[in-house]
Amino acid sequence: MALSKIATNDKHGENSPYFDGWKAYDSNPFHPTKNTQGVIQMGLAENQLCFDLIEEWIRNNPKASICTAEGVNWFKYIANFQDYHGLPEFRNAVANFMSKVRGGRVRFDPDRILMSGGATGANELIMFCLADAGDAFLVPSPYYPAFVRDLCWRTRVQLIPVECHSVNNFMITREALEEAYKKAKDDNINVKGLIITNPSNPLGTTMDRETLRSIVGFINEKNIHLVCDEIYAATVFSAPCFVSVSEVMHEIEHCKSDLIHIIYSLSKDLGLPGFRVGIVYSYNDGVVNSGRKMSSFGLVSSQTQHFLAAMLSDENFVERFLAESSRRLAARHSQFTKGLEKVNVTCLPSNAGLFCWMNLRNLLKEKTFEGEMMLWRLIINEVKLNVSPGSAFGCSEPGWYRVCFANMDDETVDVALKRIRAFVGKETAKPVELKRWKSNLRLSFSSRRFDENVMSPHSPMPHSPLTTLLIFSHSFPTYSNQKSPPKLEICETQTHGVSPVIGLKGCPLYPSIPAFTYDETHFPRTSEMKNKEQLTELRDNLKTSTLLSRRSTTVHVTYKDTESGRIKSRTSMGGHYNSVHQEPEFGPFKEIRIDDDNSWTNLYNMGTLKLQSFIYRYESMGP
Amino acid sequence: MALSKIATNDKHGENSPYFDGWKAYDSNPFHPTKNTQGVIQMGLAENQLCFDLIEEWIRNNPKASICTAEGVNWFKYIANFQDYHGLPEFRNAVANFMSKVRGGRVRFDPDRILMSGGATGANELIMFCLADAGDAFLVPSPYYPAFVRDLCWRTRVQLIPVECHSVNNFMITREALEEAYKKAKDDNINVKGLIITNPSNPLGTTMDRETLRSIVGFINEKNIHLVCDEIYAATVFSAPCFVSVSEVMHEIEHCKSDLIHIIYSLSKDLGLPGFRVGIVYSYNDGVVNSGRKMSSFGLVSSQTQHFLAAMLSDENFVERFLAESSRRLAARHSQFTKGLEKVNVTCLPSNAGLFCWMNLRNLLKEKTFEGEMMLWRLIINEVKLNVSPGSAFGCSEPGWYRVCFANMDDETVDVALKRIRAFVGKETAKPVELKRWKSNLRLSFSSRRFDENVMSPHSPMPHSPLTTLLIFSHSFPTYSNQKSPPKLEICETQTHGVSPVIGLKGCPLYPSIPAFTYDETHFPRTSEMKNKEQLTELRDNLKTSTLLSRRSTTVHVTYKDTESGRIKSRTSMGGHYNSVHQEPEFGPFKEIRIDDDNSWTNLYNMGTLKLQSFIYRYESMGP
Repeated sequence: MALSKIATNDKHGENSPYFDGWKAYDSNPFHPTKNTQGVIQMGLAENQLCFDLIEEWIRNNPKASICTAEGVNWFKYIANFQDYHGLPEFRNAVANFMSKVRGGRVRFDPDRILMSGGATGANELIMFCLADAGDAFLVPSPYYPAFVRDLCWRTRVQLIPVECHSVNNFMITREALEEAYKKAKDDNINVKGLIITNPSNPLGTTMDRETLRSIVGFINEKNIHLVCDEIYAATVFSAPCFVSVSEVMHEIEHCKSDLIHIIYSLSKDLGLPGFRVGIVYSYNDGVVNSGRKMSSFGLVSSQTQHFLAAMLSDENFVERFLAESSRRLAARHSQFTKGLEKVNVTCLPSNAGLFCWMNLRNLLKEKTFEGEMMLWRLIINEVKLNVSPGSAFGCSEPGWYRVCFANMDDETVDVALKRIRAFVGKETAKPVELKRWKSNLRLSFSSRRFDENVMSPHSPMPHSPLTTLLIFSHSFPTYSNQKSPPKLEICETQTHGVSPVIGLKGCPLYPSIPAFTYDETHFPRTSEMKNKEQLTELRDNLKTSTLLSRRSTTVHVTYKDTESGRIKSRTSMGGHYNSVHQEPEFGPFKEIRIDDDNSWTNLYNMGTLKLQSFIYRYESMGP
Repeated sequence: MALSKIATNDKHGENSPYFDGWKAYDSNPFHPTKNTQGVIQMGLAENQLCFDLIEEWIRNNPKASICTAEGVNWFKYIANFQDYHGLPEFRNAVANFMSKVRGGRVRFDPDRILMSGGATGANELIMFCLADAGDAFLVPSPYYPAFVRDLCWRTRVQLIPVECHSVNNFMITREALEEAYKKAKDDNINVKGLIITNPSNPLGTTMDRETLRSIVGFINEKNIHLVCDEIYAATVFSAPCFVSVSEVMHEIEHCKSDLIHIIYSLSKDLGLPGFRVGIVYSYNDGVVNSGRKMSSFGLVSSQTQHFLAAMLSDENFVERFLAESSRRLAARHSQFTKGLEKVNVTCLPSNAGLFCWMNLRNLLKEKTFEGEMMLWRLIINEVKLNVSPGSAFGCSEPGWYRVCFANMDDETVDVALKRIRAFVGKETAKPVELKRWKSNLRLSFSSRRFDENVMSPHSPMPHSPLTTLLIFSHSFPTYSNQKSPPKLEICETQTHGVSPVIGLKGCPLYPSIPAFTYDETHFPRTSEMKNKEQLTELRDNLKTSTLLSRRSTTVHVTYKDTESGRIKSRTSMGGHYNSVHQEPEFGPFKEIRIDDDNSWTNLYNMGTLKLQSFIYRYESMGP
């Protein structure tokens, strides 16, 4: 008996290089004495700088725990407590803490505090409340890679990137928002909201008041929800200070507050990810009511609620902790970025977060995402640092890497800096070595079958897959040195993700992967689909099927331009068929010149035109 | 901007009398000295009998907590730990505990232990792994009322009851399983599995080996999944001893073990519901792999994992605890059931759980679910005991009530017993008082808008609503004494649940409730639908719409038979339209004689035929 489509798809996102890097660390972790040549984990946004303060508080407050002789009289009451409202003292303490983190400039109502299992659970909960399967949320890129898992996997909501660029330090502009929104609307996608992270992960920047106002204005005008992930609110270590949407919304006339929802957590600001404290704070009564019931699926352990209620209610401690945490983060950030500057490696100027957004464009052999991945593999395998490539965050420009600096001690930071300096010195004097890239090709792909929500590192449009609920992306390496062309045949029908899709297999490197699967209900099954006629037949079927009224089709082709020699791509992402009369866009097929019976064969024989990446999307947009 | 369909539907199940009873308790809770006339909470399956043993262990083991001076050196490591595999020592300890609870007769592999947020999260997780939206699981009735929330709400999976009866002590028979399975198949519902609770909630019985074998044989034959909720495995206090599916599956030849999944929790057996320890133990590698990733949404707090790992690793403590817990439960069960026997109130013979399944059929004024609810309101309002009516558990026979006995001290049990005895003595000598029922009518309905997944207490087929993903049930009280007939009009179109539905409003008691909503895309909007022609038009539209290929329609009517004077019901639950050629079943409409323009008016004017309950279901079965 088959498992569910959710269980068998890959929206959990673990095939991303983001997680591949973690695996590389796990298999050879650095240790200052036992494994000095191991991989240093700089892919983990953990805050380990202030545990001593919490430990001291624990020693002084044994009553705070139900598992001490001093606190055990509370054990029975607390161990039994499973009300999804949460312990009143816990909600009060969290509301006060949230206010304090925002400089006391806003108050939070404890009755609007919803618990969930970490920010992961909070992200999913708010999506279940706001959007139906097939609905979309806009998300400025670059963004947190696990958003796909958190926001999309089980909810079947889709993300639509809002492209931000280095030219203005990746700030979110009204134009970019409008463009992404319009494109989604043109594609008949139901946009339910926008999700932002402020302070930003991975940028490490805080959003200025004007940008926030513009965003709040935008969502009010479009009448869509705004989810503000503020889990790094207290992880701000230098000016400008953090401005929360909770402040800005009150400054805007006629702001529809019931469109606004904040995600919070104690994993980053207090450094307690194991405690699984996720918070949804919503100004919408319906979300509070319904989300409260959903809390049942991810309540915070009452043991943990009780302990944190006591600790966060100690105002002296909280104030001291917040000040000291900022101070230590600033020092660490300075230590790290100054070390990089010595070898002319710059980072995006930042004042928050547990990471830097490091610019290595000058080290790229080619200014593409392929080039980015080549360099990333070098950094993992030779420099032995687990950093995360920008493509994993859906960054629109190659050459950026997120590097975490707060999950280690000062000495380990120094080792990491030394390695980077040695590497950069060597690399800047070295010619391009394409061979190395090839031999490392399988590092991030060996375990992949279907690259759905994750970036294809070979694609110059890394986040297009993220805009879809269901996508098949297959990376075809360059075939110029191959003796025989790939044979592409119709494979067995498979259902995968939310709907059956059209299939074609035969990529010689990945023979078991269907590059195309097909819906046998609506399309005739043929044994081969190698020529233009059959593609035309497919097109005609797509065009005439009434069931297409709620579906969309995307064809994405990357190819080498014979004149310029550059990699280019075409996509028909916008080709949605909202009525049976609309002509599907199949422009890209023309560009790869499928123009006779032997076209697939010719394509590879020609040697001048190389199919590198092929994505076919065929999905249900409706409920 | 609207919220999601999930957020605005009622599959959270809180409109059930099961939760209404909790509210009655919350508004007036019993206290032995401060509120001696308050409601005693007997609706909560909590185990409060052995906290002293755990408290003693805590006093002796301060190192087990990271929040003690003795254990704080582990704080940093544990507070940081967020790996979704769980602490290895925690998984080992849970695996050993699960084995010990099953008498050491089976071993559990720690690598198959998946964490989730309580049994609530575990139930949802296994559904997300096994079934797609629209798929169904069979569930023997009576069953845990919150299954609808846990298994169906966000997954959009549906439950199909397997009817069990008192004649054989509600045992699950092969015939009942086959019948429910066949009916679902006939209705073109994709049955993905069967979920059982063993020991049973609400029956308090353990399943015998032969029944378990028969069930495992059944699911193997049908090739469907079997989810065994064994959260009361250690809550067995007298013979026969508990037999787990993990034992039986090994005794069956060619058993497909990858179809079998166990739900476990420490909420009942250790009495720690606040700690949110839910476990999925699956013999299916795919579920382990995918479910592990889903654990991210409801991890157990690492503080709690660490503490429990230490406590459960203390084998002497575990053995003593299990033995003592059984002993105390047996004593409490005996105290309670013997007290009931003194006034000739019997319970289903039981040996497990934290409750009795009390038989009050003899006290019913009428042997219907209306009668059951009348008596339930008396018990809540006058006897001031929160017990749960059988209809809340989807029981197929009226007159059963679940009464929890382990969430209070001996003295409170005595107060409860005294109240029951006084009430039963009074009731057995009293004539029927219909008026009282009427005046109490709104207790369970006042806050209800849409009765979806919950039982309608007026319906003789209480669990039909539970078989559906989306259902509107409206209870029309008897109109014989009303001056004017209800006016039924087409109301505004609403989308609710998974798809738009047809709407008709006008029940005079609940004027704001649409009894019928309608899909404006596919059906013409008319201003009134009071006559047969319009119903016929609706029928014709249903028949000819191609979109019905994946939908099903249910009409359920309850009426008073004028000849026998008895309440009868008809339902077209089986009326699925899998092709446009199939004739919809509208039998029930004939029976309520809609045969001229004034039929709705006549219906009520006739005085002999009374529409009492009307359920219309119109739902998408597809993905």
